[in-house]
Amino acid sequence: MSNIVGIVMGSDSDYPYVVETMKVLKRFHVSFEVSVISAHRDTQRAFSYASSARERNLDIIIAFAGMAAHLAGVLASNTTLPVIGVPLDRTSFGGRDALLSTLQMPPGIPVATVGVDSGANAAWLALRILSLHNPELQKQLEEEKENTKQKLLEKTQKVREMWDHES
Amino acid sequence: MSNIVGIVMGSDSDYPYVVETMKVLKRFHVSFEVSVISAHRDTQRAFSYASSARERNLDIIIAFAGMAAHLAGVLASNTTLPVIGVPLDRTSFGGRDALLSTLQMPPGIPVATVGVDSGANAAWLALRILSLHNPELQKQLEEEKENTKQKLLEKTQKVREMWDHES
Amino acid sequence: MSNIVGIVMGSDSDYPYVVETMKVLKRFHVSFEVSVISAHRDTQRAFSYASSARERNLDIIIAFAGMAAHLAGVLASNTTLPVIGVPLDRTSFGGRDALLSTLQMPPGIPVATVGVDSGANAAWLALRILSLHNPELQKQLEEEKENTKQKLLEKTQKVREMWDHES
Amino acid sequence: MSNIVGIVMGSDSDYPYVVETMKVLKRFHVSFEVSVISAHRDTQRAFSYASSARERNLDIIIAFAGMAAHLAGVLASNTTLPVIGVPLDRTSFGGRDALLSTLQMPPGIPVATVGVDSGANAAWLALRILSLHNPELQKQLEEEKENTKQKLLEKTQKVREMWDHES
Amino acid sequence: MSNIVGIVMGSDSDYPYVVETMKVLKRFHVSFEVSVISAHRDTQRAFSYASSARERNLDIIIAFAGMAAHLAGVLASNTTLPVIGVPLDRTSFGGRDALLSTLQMPPGIPVATVGVDSGANAAWLALRILSLHNPELQKQLEEEKENTKQKLLEKTQKVREMWDHES
Amino acid sequence: MSNIVGIVMGSDSDYPYVVETMKVLKRFHVSFEVSVISAHRDTQRAFSYASSARERNLDIIIAFAGMAAHLAGVLASNTTLPVIGVPLDRTSFGGRDALLSTLQMPPGIPVATVGVDSGANAAWLALRILSLHNPELQKQLEEEKENTKQKLLEKTQKVREMWDHES
Amino acid sequence: MSNIVGIVMGSDSDYPYVVETMKVLKRFHVSFEVSVISAHRDTQRAFSYASSARERNLDIIIAFAGMAAHLAGVLASNTTLPVIGVPLDRTSFGGRDALLSTLQMPPGIPVATVGVDSGANAAWLALRILSLHNPELQKQLEEEKENTKQKLLEKTQKVREMWDHES
Amino acid sequence: MSNIVGIVMGSDSDYPYVVETMKVLKRFHVSFEVSVISAHRDTQRAFSYASSARERNLDIIIAFAGMAAHLAGVLASNTTLPVIGVPLDRTSFGGRDALLSTLQMPPGIPVATVGVDSGANAAWLALRILSLHNPELQKQLEEEKENTKQKLLEKTQKVREMWDHES
Repeated sequence: MSNIVGIVMGSDSDYPYVVETMKVLKRFHVSFEVSVISAHRDTQRAFSYASSARERNLDIIIAFAGMAAHLAGVLASNTTLPVIGVPLDRTSFGGRDALLSTLQMPPGIPVATVGVDSGANAAWLALRILSLHNPELQKQLEEEKENTKQKLLEKTQKVREMWDHES
Repeated sequence: MSNIVGIVMGSDSDYPYVVETMKVLKRFHVSFEVSVISAHRDTQRAFSYASSARERNLDIIIAFAGMAAHLAGVLASNTTLPVIGVPLDRTSFGGRDALLSTLQMPPGIPVATVGVDSGANAAWLALRILSLHNPELQKQLEEEKENTKQKLLEKTQKVREMWDHES
Repeated sequence: MSNIVGIVMGSDSDYPYVVETMKVLKRFHVSFEVSVISAHRDTQRAFSYASSARERNLDIIIAFAGMAAHLAGVLASNTTLPVIGVPLDRTSFGGRDALLSTLQMPPGIPVATVGVDSGANAAWLALRILSLHNPELQKQLEEEKENTKQKLLEKTQKVREMWDHES
Repeated sequence: MSNIVGIVMGSDSDYPYVVETMKVLKRFHVSFEVSVISAHRDTQRAFSYASSARERNLDIIIAFAGMAAHLAGVLASNTTLPVIGVPLDRTSFGGRDALLSTLQMPPGIPVATVGVDSGANAAWLALRILSLHNPELQKQLEEEKENTKQKLLEKTQKVREMWDHES
Repeated sequence: MSNIVGIVMGSDSDYPYVVETMKVLKRFHVSFEVSVISAHRDTQRAFSYASSARERNLDIIIAFAGMAAHLAGVLASNTTLPVIGVPLDRTSFGGRDALLSTLQMPPGIPVATVGVDSGANAAWLALRILSLHNPELQKQLEEEKENTKQKLLEKTQKVREMWDHES
Repeated sequence: MSNIVGIVMGSDSDYPYVVETMKVLKRFHVSFEVSVISAHRDTQRAFSYASSARERNLDIIIAFAGMAAHLAGVLASNTTLPVIGVPLDRTSFGGRDALLSTLQMPPGIPVATVGVDSGANAAWLALRILSLHNPELQKQLEEEKENTKQKLLEKTQKVREMWDHES
Repeated sequence: MSNIVGIVMGSDSDYPYVVETMKVLKRFHVSFEVSVISAHRDTQRAFSYASSARERNLDIIIAFAGMAAHLAGVLASNTTLPVIGVPLDRTSFGGRDALLSTLQMPPGIPVATVGVDSGANAAWLALRILSLHNPELQKQLEEEKENTKQKLLEKTQKVREMWDHES
Repeated sequence: MSNIVGIVMGSDSDYPYVVETMKVLKRFHVSFEVSVISAHRDTQRAFSYASSARERNLDIIIAFAGMAAHLAGVLASNTTLPVIGVPLDRTSFGGRDALLSTLQMPPGIPVATVGVDSGANAAWLALRILSLHNPELQKQLEEEKENTKQKLLEKTQKVREMWDHES
C-alpha cells in the first residue's frame, strides 16, 4: 500500500508552483492526487475534502494559495492529518499576505508552513514525514543528502574556472 | 421590522473590540445579535451561519478576528450579504497579519475591511448601508455629522486654553 | 428606478483598474456614472460630489486612488452613503501607501476598503449592498456563486491533464 | 509685522506633540495660532482655513495628524503656502500609516514632511523658511547652531565620567 | 515503544515558550526530551544532535530560536527527520528576523514553520505527524477537535451575558 | 535679483529624477544651479557647499540621494537655510532606506522630505517657499492651481468616452 | 603599544548601549576612548575625528546612532580605518531607520554593521579584527569560545530541572 | 607573505555578486580563494572551513548568501576571524530575509554585515581591515579616496552639460 499525498491548489493558475512539488514526489515514487479547491469559492468542498481525507487514505495534505490564503488553514481545521502550507507571491505584497494568512494559525490548528513559492520544500517535508515509517524512503533521503554534498563539491571548481576565464 | 446585524467574533477574547460596535449600533436602535464562531475551530458552524444568514433576516455580518484572520473571508464565501471585516492586533505583527488575511480576498468574494481594531467604524459602515432604505436612520446620521462638527469647534478653544495655562 | 453607483478615480491613469469595476456592474445591469475627481487638485469638487450624492440618487460611491490616497476618505467625510475604497499600487511601496491612507480612518468616517488594485471586488461589494433591497439581484448573485463552484470543479480535471502531458 | 505660523491638529489628543512646536516657536518670538481642524470631520472648515490662509497673513501652515493623515494634504491642496506635515504614531503601524498618507502626495501638491512625532522639527523647519527674509531670525538660528555644538562638547566629558564611576 | 520528540531551544531564556509545547505533549502522553543547543555557540553539538537523531529514536525535532534563528535550519540540514521551527519574538523586529531565518530555507532542506512564539502549535503539529501511525493518538486528536467545538458553543452565551450586564 | 535654488545630487546617475525638478523651476523662471556632491565621497565639499550657501545667495537647497541617503541631512546640518530632501528608490528596499535616512532627523536639523522619487514636488515646495516674498510667483502658483482644476474637468469626459468605446 | 578603539556615540542618551561595548573591551584589556560626536550637530568635528584617527593611533572606530543614523557613514567617509556601526532602536520604526541608514552605504565606503542595539557584538567584532595581529588576544578569544560551549552544556540540565519542578 | 581573504558563497548562482568582490581585491593585489560551501547542504564542510581558517592563513572570511542566510553566521560561529556577511536579494522579500538572517546574531558571534547585494563593499571593508598592518595598502586606500573625490568633481560639469543639451 502506497502513501498518498493530497495536493490542493486554490486556483489553477497556481499550477507552475505545484509542478515542483509533483516532480519531487514522483522522483521518490510517492503517490499523490492533485485537486483545485478554493476555500473561498467552495468552502463545503474544502470541508469535505479535509474531513474525509483520512478515510480516503491520505497521509498528508499540501495546500497552495496566494493572497488572503485561507486554504491551508481551512483544511487543517477539518482534519487531524498534517497539513503543509505553501504561501504564494501573487500580489504587490511579495507573498507577505499569503505567508501571514497561512502561518499565524491559532493554537490547536497548526499549518506546517514552508517558504514563499517553495513547492519543492513542501514535497521534501512530506517525504521526511512519510519516511518515519518507510525505511526505504528514509534510505533514499539519506542518499540524496549525500549526493547533494558531492555535487556541491564540484561547484567550487566550476566557480574558480569562471573567475579564471574572466580575469 | 428592524434591521439586524450579525456580529461574529473568532474568540471571546475579542470582546473588548466588539463592545465598541455594539455601543454604536445600540445608540441608533439597530438590532443585532452577537456570536462566537471560529472559522478554524468549527468551519461547519461558520458555514451554516453564513449560508442561513439571509433567511434569518440578517442584513449585514460584521466579523472580528486576529492572527490568520479567515473568519470574515469564510463568512463572505458562504453568503451574498455584505460582510464587514475588523482585523485585530493580537500578535507581534501589529495587526498586519489579520489585515492582509481579511483584505486580500480573490475576485467575487469581497470583504469590506475597516481599520485595525476599529470596531466603531464597522458599526458606522453598517449604519451607512442600512440607511440606504431607512430615511429615519439617514436623518440621524446626517445630524450626527453636524453634531460632530459643532463639538470640534469647541476643541480649538480648549487647546488654546491649555497652551495659555502652560506658557 | 435603477440603483446608481458613483465611481470616482483620482486620476485618469487609474482607468485600467476602474474598467474591472464597470465590467462587473454592467454584467448585472447596475447603472453607474464614472468621474475623475481629485481630492488633492480640487477638494471643493470632491466635497460637492459627496455632499450632493444622495440627492443625485447615488446609493454607493466607489473611489480609486494611489499614493497618499485621500479620495475615499474625503468622500466618506462628506456623505453618509457607504463609500468603498480601492487602494492602487502606483509607487515603490507596492500599494501600502494607498492602503493605509484609505483604510485607517478615524471613528465615524468608515471606508469599506477592498484589496489593493481590486476593482472587481469593489463592484462585487457594491452588488451585495444593493442586493439587500433588490431580490432579483440577490437571486443573480446566488446563481453566480453556484456557477463559480461548477466551473471550479472542471479545473481539477484540467490540471490533472496538464500533469499527465508533462510527466 | 510679525510672521505668523498656523498650527493645525486633527484632534485635540494630538496636543502633546503640538506643544513641542509651540515651545520652539515661542523661544524665537514667532507668532502662531493653533486650531483643531479635522479634514475628515469638517472638510469645509479645512478648505476655508487653507484657502483664506494668505489673506489672514499666515506664512506657513504646520499640520499634525495620525492614522490616515489627510490633514496636511488637504491643506496643501487648497493653499499655495508651504505646508509642513507631522505624521503621528497613533496606531499599531508605528506611524507608517500617517507617514505615507502625509508624504506620498501627487506632483504639484507638496507636503514638507518631517519625522514621525517630530513636532520640534516642524518648528525648526518653519524658522528656517521664515529666516529667508528675517535677518534677525537668521542670526538667532546661526547662534543656536553654535550653542548646540558647544553643549555637545561637554557631553563627552559627562559620558567619560559616567564610565569612570561605573568601572 | 513510545514516540519521542526532541525539543531544542537556542537559549535557556526561551524556556517560557517551550513550556507550552511540553504541556501539550504531556497531555497526550508523548515522550520528549528537552535540550539547550545553540547553532551559533556550538555548531558541532547541533550537528551531532541532528545526525544521531534517528538512531536515538527521535521521530520529530522541534527547534525554538529568536534573532537570526539558524537552529531549526542547521538541525534540518543534518537529519532527514521532520524538523518543526518556532520563530521567537526577541528583538525590535517583532519576530520577523526569526521567522524569515527559519522559514526561507533552500530546496531540499525544509523546516515546518509555525507561527511566531507558537510553541503550542509546534506540539499540535508533532501530534498530527505522530498520529499517522498511532490510531490511539489519532482518536484522541479527533476527540479533542470535537471538545473544542463544544466549548466554543458556550462562549456565545458567555459573551451575550457580558453584554447584558454592560448595557 | 532672482531667487536661487541649489540642487545637489549624490550621484550623476540620479540625473533623471533631478530633471523633473529643473523643468518645473525653469517653467517659473526660478534660477538654480545643479551640482554633484556626495556626502560620502567628499564630506568636506558638502560641508563647504552648505556653510557657504547663504553668502552665495542660495535661498533653498534641494538634495537627491538613494540608499543610506545622508546628503540632505549633512547639508541641513551645516546651513540654516531650508533643505528639501528627495529620497530615491535605488535598491531592493523600494526607497525605504533613502526615505528613513532622509526623514528621521534629530530635533533642530529638519529636512523637508517629499515623496520617494518625487523631484517634481521638491520644485513645487521650493516655489511655495519662494512665493512668500514674491507676489508675482504667488500669482502664478494660484493660476496654476486653477488651470489644473480646469484640465481635470476634461478628464471625466475623456474617461467616459474610453468606456463608451470599450463597451 | 596597545590597540585603541575609538567609540563614538551620536548622543549621550545612547550611553546604556555603549556600556555593553566598553565592558567587553575592558574584559580583554583593549584600550578605548569614548566620545559624543554628532554628525548632524557638528559635522566638522566628526570629519576631524575621522580624518585624524589614524595619526591618533586608532585602529577601529565604533559608531552608535539612532534615527537617520549618519554617524557611522560620515566617519567611514573620512577615514580608511574599519568602522563598525551599531544601529539603535530609538523611534517607532524599531531600529529599521537606523539600520538602513547605517548599512546601505555606497560602494567604497563600507560600514561593518552589527545587529540593532548590539553594542556587545560591536566589541566582539573589534576584538576579532584586533586579534589578527595579536596572538594573545587570539588565544583569549579561542578560550572564550570554549568556555561558552561549556556553560551552555549546563543549561540543558537547568532547563530539565525547571520542567521537573513545574510538572 | 600576502594576506588571504576566504570568499565563500552558498550557491554558485551567487557568482555575479561575488565577482564584484574579487575584482576589487584583485585591483589591490590582495590574495583570495573562492569556494562554494552551503551551511545547509554540508554543515560539516562549513564547520571545517571555518575552524581551520586561521591555520590555513586566512585573515578574513567573506560570506555570500540569500534566503535564510545562515552561512556567515555558521562560519562566524566556528572561527574567531572577522567574518563579513553579504546578504543577497534572491526572493520576494527584497533581501530582508537574508539581511536579518545575517545581521541579527547573538552576543559573541558578530557578523560584519554590509548592504544587500553589496559585494564591492565586502571587499572594501576587507581592505580596510587588512590595511591596519599593511602600510602600502593603507597608502593605496588613501589615494583611492582622493581619486574618487577628483572624479566626482567632473560629474558636476557633466550633469550641467546634459541639462544644457536638454533645455
